[in-house]
Amino acid sequence: MPEFSPGLEGVVAAQTAVSEVDGANGRLIYRGGYLIEDLVPSAGFEETAYLLWNGALPNRGQLDAQRKQMVAARKLNDAARGALAASDPETDPMDVLRTVLSAQGSHRALTKPSVDEAIALTAVMPTIVAGAYRRRQHREPIEPRDELGHAANLIWMMEGKEPATERTAWLDTYLVLLADHGLNASTFTARVVASTGSDLTSCVVAAIGALKGPAHGGATLAARTMLDQIGSLENVDKYMEEQHAHHARFPGFGHRVYRTYDPRAKILRELAKTADPKLHQLAAHTEEVALKILHDAHPERPNATNVDFWAAVVLTGAGVPKELFTCLFATSRVAGWTAHVLESIEDLRIIRPASQWIGPAPGTKPEALDKR
Amino acid sequence: MPEFSPGLEGVVAAQTAVSEVDGANGRLIYRGGYLIEDLVPSAGFEETAYLLWNGALPNRGQLDAQRKQMVAARKLNDAARGALAASDPETDPMDVLRTVLSAQGSHRALTKPSVDEAIALTAVMPTIVAGAYRRRQHREPIEPRDELGHAANLIWMMEGKEPATERTAWLDTYLVLLADHGLNASTFTARVVASTGSDLTSCVVAAIGALKGPAHGGATLAARTMLDQIGSLENVDKYMEEQHAHHARFPGFGHRVYRTYDPRAKILRELAKTADPKLHQLAAHTEEVALKILHDAHPERPNATNVDFWAAVVLTGAGVPKELFTCLFATSRVAGWTAHVLESIEDLRIIRPASQWIGPAPGTKPEALDKR
Repeated sequence: MPEFSPGLEGVVAAQTAVSEVDGANGRLIYRGGYLIEDLVPSAGFEETAYLLWNGALPNRGQLDAQRKQMVAARKLNDAARGALAASDPETDPMDVLRTVLSAQGSHRALTKPSVDEAIALTAVMPTIVAGAYRRRQHREPIEPRDELGHAANLIWMMEGKEPATERTAWLDTYLVLLADHGLNASTFTARVVASTGSDLTSCVVAAIGALKGPAHGGATLAARTMLDQIGSLENVDKYMEEQHAHHARFPGFGHRVYRTYDPRAKILRELAKTADPKLHQLAAHTEEVALKILHDAHPERPNATNVDFWAAVVLTGAGVPKELFTCLFATSRVAGWTAHVLESIEDLRIIRPASQWIGPAPGTKPEALDKR
Repeated sequence: MPEFSPGLEGVVAAQTAVSEVDGANGRLIYRGGYLIEDLVPSAGFEETAYLLWNGALPNRGQLDAQRKQMVAARKLNDAARGALAASDPETDPMDVLRTVLSAQGSHRALTKPSVDEAIALTAVMPTIVAGAYRRRQHREPIEPRDELGHAANLIWMMEGKEPATERTAWLDTYLVLLADHGLNASTFTARVVASTGSDLTSCVVAAIGALKGPAHGGATLAARTMLDQIGSLENVDKYMEEQHAHHARFPGFGHRVYRTYDPRAKILRELAKTADPKLHQLAAHTEEVALKILHDAHPERPNATNVDFWAAVVLTGAGVPKELFTCLFATSRVAGWTAHVLESIEDLRIIRPASQWIGPAPGTKPEALDKR
């Protein structure tokens, strides 16, 4: 029996051409060989999703066709509307997303994952997220507007106002940057579910559940909460040292794979200067202090800033309420989840690892209930 | 970089004391060291669930306390009722279960998995399954009855009639046998979701999605469908040979771990003689023919009968409609899923395996949209 691999660290669980995290060099490569920093200026979220699903960036005709499909898939069906309307308004929006997407993607018979369904599930995420947000505020949902792009329509459905071009652009950049990231825990979850021959909705719903965890997608909110608690520049050093003394982890720092600065964090850090100058200033000082404390404590560890830290600032600047941060992450990553599922089912093999028994030797005899 | 392990076969992804599949010897060991064949005569499903969650079989007082908790958790809350009522009556019952359990287990804030929540989620599964069944028939749901046990109450909520003692006993045995099985794909899914720090509902909802696949929980239905298609004893040889000639797999045969007869199948095979003598006869002959064909084709492979084959016969005998077979599997396995999650969070470490990049070398430059 081979050794136990805690967290499956270093175990190769998939071969993929969807994305690659080159941690040693701080590079993120998307399908087709694009470095994330090259892709961001040239492609929006819809193009990036097309790339991840189809293997090449779309031309104008292909992009228009996909957009048309996405627009047509934005509305909630009756099952999803009913599930949303029945939810407690104060429910965690990630729980609402998990439930309502599960309802929206239900079928009468088992369906094989397809690009069409990937498009439909990706297209409807903003409708659910905005619907959950409106419900929290005890306001009616706002219907999607066909002429708006994916990011702009999300803000529209939240606020009922057409957003400024730059807010849309910030959000769109965020959506491109977070769309895929190798075999992270939620993507791996989607691939495990797919490996049993299950349907695409089941894969995405499972991935939403995994993303929710604070060690994964929940970290962006945790980073923002940390910045909120710090509150002002004067407070940074004191707060961070106290946290460190209490052995608290700094959300937004350190990563299983990156040995150097997360390339997505670099882009978002720059963007944050315009998106939220004041919060950028606070965050930049916090980052400086955090990196110094972490380096002093563990000079051997590569405790660089990760995407969650600067994503928290950019999402704040883009006017996304913090309770929706993890939902926004899901709204982006669904493109990657579905692309990984589509890739993995080309050679379906159930993912069923082994376990190591640490219980007593077999043969215990049960006593009858009345003798226990 | 280590080698790619397709399906993670042989990779040890967890240490566990919840259950152990001793494939070489055809043994299934439940927590505490109980062999499944020793446990079945002594413990019903509620006791088995207690064992998996707490590490020891309950005494009368402990069992009564847990039963009381389960009875109190049987009713659907408003979110779950609404989601069920909004579903298309013809929806795959597994999709209904995924959605409605997600609604039922939603929270306002992130909660840490607990035995109490494991009890609540396990207790409510029959209510959802029976509700989905009634809805398929365009009939009103039936409220649970407090004085009935878990298995009897499930039949009650489906039919509105109190079941005969032996039907309840068959179903209860099935629920004990399927309650856990090492690191199968759905249990592994639950553990991956838990590893991010997510909540118990997210783990169970994800596991339901994984169980749905025909390579996993869907196999019981496939075995029953095969028996339906065969239809009569005279038809067995012809049907099986034709299927084999068309390279079809026989559902209910072969297993990643067992190298010999599945001990659960052995128990269910015996039980099927009483539960459905006619179908038992057909199944026994089908098994004989299947094993001969498989042995002749691949004498080197351990193609023994697995649990799905005989579970299909026993569930049929217990009067469970075949479209609910996978839901029944989930109703049992939820005990194991939640026990594994509770065990795994004692030492939380994100499950994030590596992947092997098979795409082009990085550095592709994106063309502007109008030049593509």
